[in-house]
Amino acid sequence: MRVHNFSAGPASLPLAVLERAQREFTDYAGSGMSVMEMSHRSSIFVEIAARAEANCRTLLSIPDDYAVLFLQGGATAQFAAVPQNLLPDGGKADYVNTGSWSTKAIKEAARYVDAREVASSKASNFDRIPPVADWALRPDAGYLHVCSNETIGGVQFQEFPATDVPLVVDMSSDIMSRPIDVSRFALIYAGAQKNLGPAGLTLVIVRRDLLDRGLGSVPSVLHYGTQAAADSMSNTPPTYAWYLVGLVFEWLLEQGGLAAIAERNERKAQLLYGLIDGSNFYRAPVQVEARSRMNVPFTLPDPELDAAFLAGADAAGLKNLKGHRSVGGMRASIYNAVGEDAVAALCDYMQDFERDHG
Amino acid sequence: MRVHNFSAGPASLPLAVLERAQREFTDYAGSGMSVMEMSHRSSIFVEIAARAEANCRTLLSIPDDYAVLFLQGGATAQFAAVPQNLLPDGGKADYVNTGSWSTKAIKEAARYVDAREVASSKASNFDRIPPVADWALRPDAGYLHVCSNETIGGVQFQEFPATDVPLVVDMSSDIMSRPIDVSRFALIYAGAQKNLGPAGLTLVIVRRDLLDRGLGSVPSVLHYGTQAAADSMSNTPPTYAWYLVGLVFEWLLEQGGLAAIAERNERKAQLLYGLIDGSNFYRAPVQVEARSRMNVPFTLPDPELDAAFLAGADAAGLKNLKGHRSVGGMRASIYNAVGEDAVAALCDYMQDFERDHG
Repeated sequence: MRVHNFSAGPASLPLAVLERAQREFTDYAGSGMSVMEMSHRSSIFVEIAARAEANCRTLLSIPDDYAVLFLQGGATAQFAAVPQNLLPDGGKADYVNTGSWSTKAIKEAARYVDAREVASSKASNFDRIPPVADWALRPDAGYLHVCSNETIGGVQFQEFPATDVPLVVDMSSDIMSRPIDVSRFALIYAGAQKNLGPAGLTLVIVRRDLLDRGLGSVPSVLHYGTQAAADSMSNTPPTYAWYLVGLVFEWLLEQGGLAAIAERNERKAQLLYGLIDGSNFYRAPVQVEARSRMNVPFTLPDPELDAAFLAGADAAGLKNLKGHRSVGGMRASIYNAVGEDAVAALCDYMQDFERDHG
Repeated sequence: MRVHNFSAGPASLPLAVLERAQREFTDYAGSGMSVMEMSHRSSIFVEIAARAEANCRTLLSIPDDYAVLFLQGGATAQFAAVPQNLLPDGGKADYVNTGSWSTKAIKEAARYVDAREVASSKASNFDRIPPVADWALRPDAGYLHVCSNETIGGVQFQEFPATDVPLVVDMSSDIMSRPIDVSRFALIYAGAQKNLGPAGLTLVIVRRDLLDRGLGSVPSVLHYGTQAAADSMSNTPPTYAWYLVGLVFEWLLEQGGLAAIAERNERKAQLLYGLIDGSNFYRAPVQVEARSRMNVPFTLPDPELDAAFLAGADAAGLKNLKGHRSVGGMRASIYNAVGEDAVAALCDYMQDFERDHG
């Protein structure tokens, strides 16, 4: 029996996608083989790959002057690849630090370029987005980097600032959770394992004029220009993950696209935050205007209750609610594939628990 | 209906493995979720990961002073990662060039270090291993690199030379096809998509004294020391591919381990090469002593017959036999998961075709 899975990532996937992949697992479309047994050069796989890219472009309304890449290594590989691709040695890059993932991105970039933290909410334990007016931006920076949604802290940009320098965004944990205007970004990257598919695939959407700034020290598999010229097949891509991400894209279109998904995500988040805010028992540590629609951290009035909360949730089929050790308490990750029924079941359980322990 | 799939990679996987994964696809071991929906930090996935490593160590008899890493990026990422991890800038590395993959490895390494081609069989269109006595080895090289099996040319080392410098081997297309003595190598790497599982996972077996030579310019996700210290989870690993590779390891153990697999691979290769050598119609371009047991290129007496051969094979359920464009003719890849029945069916078809067109 399937459970309600609130894992922060790898995370829940749409059951309809999983069931379709399961049916096709040993024999895709009469080919007599699994998708994972096909050459990436075969016409049947090339068609799978191209359809995924086309649907990705449709969902996000990606302009033609952007390349869409399907790479390996996760967002963490991009922490190195972004500065290596975009800047010369010693180039300047500005970073806004809104939590654990921003911090990691800055640390890795600093190995290659002059990466400066131009704003940080660390002093308040990453409970907000630092006010844009306070960002100490450098006009000669090669790019400005932000993390649109901090998976651990549960902090999300609800709007993005207008910037003079190219804006680079790590969207790993909220890509395709809402419509965005791609043209406002120079580069978007996202590990697949939250909203798109299985771990092992990284989506990179990059303005074509940024593709060919020389190889520098970047491994060629992570060089945007090389991979764009080869349709992300300069080496063997993660074919099965690509196929699964393509199925998720089709599912998103069937749901009505990103506007419809965003409405549903908003309803889910309001249900959960509404319960928390209406309670004297639960507490959400993030400031209201920065609250994530994807990852909802919350605490109980006494950490001594955490174990009982988690044990009861587990017994009720509500899984992976334990908060990250750096924040404590609980965290419910409610990505696209987590249904309204799952959030409703969680809220029911939370009310019962409060009644019994409040 | 399943076909006989002779793809060079991604390639055929054992049907028993696929069927087991299919059964477990939406609900692994009563967890209520797919393996690909689990946190890599969860106890259930950590157990999957650890079992895969343990079985890998058993199959290859890997000594304790070697780390086993499960990375991303394929062998092509290792073309950069090997010199970046093992040598300082400007360090010396010797490479033996036995075909397309060796050539690519040299080209990428030369971006980071003094990579020298110390032997090559290019002059004879990569139809042999250059005699070891002719290798112009440098005693002060940091390592010597060879490709154990050239997937495109069908050239395979049947034994490895004794070397004074650390020996690094790309085993992407013949790993676990036969027993090897791991202690003779400093580092072994292999993309999974030929003998181990789906594309998107790279196995690295590296002597622990080579782990921590500083980060240099290598992205941290490709730094051996960082990943070894984190059990290959310094970032989110390709969890589903890791699980599938683990299932293949279990299947290999059930087959009797690598000695039994090697015997079967030898029988398959002898059947196919025997037919070719006993014929005046088919021809194998590689010298006998260097012939690969994994990839068997062969030609017909007239390239004009190729299309008819492939069409007939396709109709007979014998798929992906077209040779690489750089070699021409046909290529049958007969990895571990390609059964003796598949090779027998191919041989039957080849005899029929020769009778009709010879």
